Amino acid sequence: MRKVHMAPLTREEIMGNWKRRRGASSLDDVAGNGLINRRALLGQGFAIAGAVGAAGTVTSAAAEPLVDAPWGLEVGAITPPVQTPSPFEKNVVRALSNPNADFRTSHARTPHQLLGGTVTPNGLHFSINHAGIPNIDPAQHKLVIHGMVRRPLEFTLESLSRYPLVTRMAFVECAGNSAGMFAKEPLQAPAGLLHGLVSNAEWTGVPLSTLLDEAGVDPKAKWLVAEGTDAHFLDRSVPVKKAYDDALVAIYQNGEHLMPGNGYPMRLLLPGFQGNMNVKFLRRIKAIDQPAYTYFETKNYSQILPGGKTWRFHFVMEVKSFITHPSFGLSLNGPGLYAISGVAYSGTGRIAKVLVSADGGKSWGEAALQGSIHEKSFTRFVMPWRWDGQPAILQSRAYDDGGNVQPLRADFVAMRGEATNPVTTPLAFPNQHYNSITSWAVDGKGEIKHVYA
Amino acid sequence: MRKVHMAPLTREEIMGNWKRRRGASSLDDVAGNGLINRRALLGQGFAIAGAVGAAGTVTSAAAEPLVDAPWGLEVGAITPPVQTPSPFEKNVVRALSNPNADFRTSHARTPHQLLGGTVTPNGLHFSINHAGIPNIDPAQHKLVIHGMVRRPLEFTLESLSRYPLVTRMAFVECAGNSAGMFAKEPLQAPAGLLHGLVSNAEWTGVPLSTLLDEAGVDPKAKWLVAEGTDAHFLDRSVPVKKAYDDALVAIYQNGEHLMPGNGYPMRLLLPGFQGNMNVKFLRRIKAIDQPAYTYFETKNYSQILPGGKTWRFHFVMEVKSFITHPSFGLSLNGPGLYAISGVAYSGTGRIAKVLVSADGGKSWGEAALQGSIHEKSFTRFVMPWRWDGQPAILQSRAYDDGGNVQPLRADFVAMRGEATNPVTTPLAFPNQHYNSITSWAVDGKGEIKHVYA
Repeated sequence: MRKVHMAPLTREEIMGNWKRRRGASSLDDVAGNGLINRRALLGQGFAIAGAVGAAGTVTSAAAEPLVDAPWGLEVGAITPPVQTPSPFEKNVVRALSNPNADFRTSHARTPHQLLGGTVTPNGLHFSINHAGIPNIDPAQHKLVIHGMVRRPLEFTLESLSRYPLVTRMAFVECAGNSAGMFAKEPLQAPAGLLHGLVSNAEWTGVPLSTLLDEAGVDPKAKWLVAEGTDAHFLDRSVPVKKAYDDALVAIYQNGEHLMPGNGYPMRLLLPGFQGNMNVKFLRRIKAIDQPAYTYFETKNYSQILPGGKTWRFHFVMEVKSFITHPSFGLSLNGPGLYAISGVAYSGTGRIAKVLVSADGGKSWGEAALQGSIHEKSFTRFVMPWRWDGQPAILQSRAYDDGGNVQPLRADFVAMRGEATNPVTTPLAFPNQHYNSITSWAVDGKGEIKHVYA
Repeated sequence: MRKVHMAPLTREEIMGNWKRRRGASSLDDVAGNGLINRRALLGQGFAIAGAVGAAGTVTSAAAEPLVDAPWGLEVGAITPPVQTPSPFEKNVVRALSNPNADFRTSHARTPHQLLGGTVTPNGLHFSINHAGIPNIDPAQHKLVIHGMVRRPLEFTLESLSRYPLVTRMAFVECAGNSAGMFAKEPLQAPAGLLHGLVSNAEWTGVPLSTLLDEAGVDPKAKWLVAEGTDAHFLDRSVPVKKAYDDALVAIYQNGEHLMPGNGYPMRLLLPGFQGNMNVKFLRRIKAIDQPAYTYFETKNYSQILPGGKTWRFHFVMEVKSFITHPSFGLSLNGPGLYAISGVAYSGTGRIAKVLVSADGGKSWGEAALQGSIHEKSFTRFVMPWRWDGQPAILQSRAYDDGGNVQPLRADFVAMRGEATNPVTTPLAFPNQHYNSITSWAVDGKGEIKHVYA
């Protein structure tokens, strides 16, 4: 199947070969400002690599073009029981809002601009803790299901492990993720600071419906109060209907038991629902006939709208995407070919398509979606881009299989309002469920800024 | 959709309800010794949880059955930049063959008996290092493609990051994984010691075909020599055909850059091919017209067969499965309901089905497969099981979508032979490509041994 070229390729040859190989119409731009047909990523035509000997050395196919590096000339390091990232990756960490653990909420944000693929490693999964992270002995911890049930039951990590477990991918996103995007002026910050309160993992646990069936929940019970055993006893009201849809009591995350900041030893997983409802350190589920109107659902997560009305019980995180590469803080190294890449997700279903623009929304091209497309999970999109060295504005816009579309910023702000300064006034409203577009402006030097466009 | 029961459920009720809800014929056993219809995992009928007040306390739906644990009564720990597992998970580590880093190969094995789902966390991914782990500065590291190519090219981590990347799940398995299973007497060891040289991850990288096209590989070049920059300069011959099938130069693993023991900053990924060929610390790919017959392919990975013939260039890891729960070292806590669970995978395609037996292979039931079923990747299987307290022998047998079947042990050993003592003689033959069945014998006390059955 492969084509071999023994002479330098002209652009016409590349296009011709590519047509023959893929049956596509051309390698021509699919949208303005250099967006290339997305199928090009399956073919040839990239010229990013350096030629060997570019510095002046004469090379040939027969020559040995390699110089031995020092690490190849001595025996390397020990193989440890648990391996950790390279010391050269020491900047790949979560951004902390409260590094000294003052007596307030702590946020740790996923550095999306430094990651690839769709899985967030557990060490870098976002975590918000309102009262610190409890150090729970799993042998002592119990989950109780009680309230309007036939027989109250209690579960341990050991007993949950005996159930047939379900495994699925799911993102978890804080309702307040991207709050800074409501600011009247665009904040100059990397993707992980702007959007780092969403992460994606493979979760394994027991369907909550199995446990409720076993307890025999009363048909009059329409709500569940889920409560954690952190020092806030954080609690949220969850519709029973969600429990019978796709809720899990999760005990594994990306293959291993949950990390403490993600709810060890067990948490509620409500795929697509705002993060705070996915109660960590889960210690009870109480069946009741009405919502509990807890602190976190009546204060923090009842978004006040322009005009003074409030979104109450607005649970589902809407369809959204953002570009991670290139993005703020990652400069372009001269004109040429690049890949525009990012993540898209929807709390209502699967990503159907992602459009990308390099001209601030004047024209759009459809990105390639990588890997399996899971419901309520990250999907990685990729769009090849030929940067000509001129200013460009990069945007992405996601569509889900329920017909939902990521709103344009002008429409979104008209509906939801803006905040005066969410940095100096962190609880300024509006601050929740931002799912509009992020725009990265590339200047002539390849520097990238956050803009509204 | 949910059914509610306000009176204790009899077995007849459970079966009746389950029939109504799921349209299945019964909850009856699907195979001998207590294997239950796999659809039961979507319904009810498990009675693993303890009743609240089981110790004698009178409880009712109105009572508050929880006692506050100490960790809920004080502010918890700081939220760190990179989170790590709970201290209660300190035994979830890789088993090391060479903990003092003596001057020989080091193996670190994934503890499958302690994990769930399908993703292996990067810290626990298996790693084999013949000459230690090099500490590579990615700014200095280069990958060169040369040999029978039109124009030799060099790539850095930075330049590879500019290509449109591909994301996929894939297992990597050492050809010598499960070598201990060739022993004449079954080794008493946990699943992770027997089978821990296979792991599964989401990999992201550049298709090797893209890079070869760019270099313009000669049509006469049928092989590539891939070489790493560890102190062995470990090299293997790879068919050009595989490069144009699904080979990647991987730069991310489960979302983050590769960890050092898995090839940082870049490795070859040859989905389904034996682990050693997925060359780590990749520094060159040289196109040639015949195999290089390197040390690792002519000595270590040319399996000698009964009769003295040799498997040369036997690359694909065959269809395989093993039960992780329950397994050696994980005792059963009394008769009752359990889930039998494990992983299945095939180097040639997708898992089509997994059969499970609780009576040593006399009868088999079909397990549920969890989550998305990816090609050349782990698939988690689950089978509900009602243990009656009598001895049982648990087995799994995987089938892939290419019609390949995991061989029964008697057939396999007849074909491949046995080793005298692979522990005292680690390089005893046969020692490679074990893909037959693993049997766990449960005794009347719930203790589990490894047996041949």
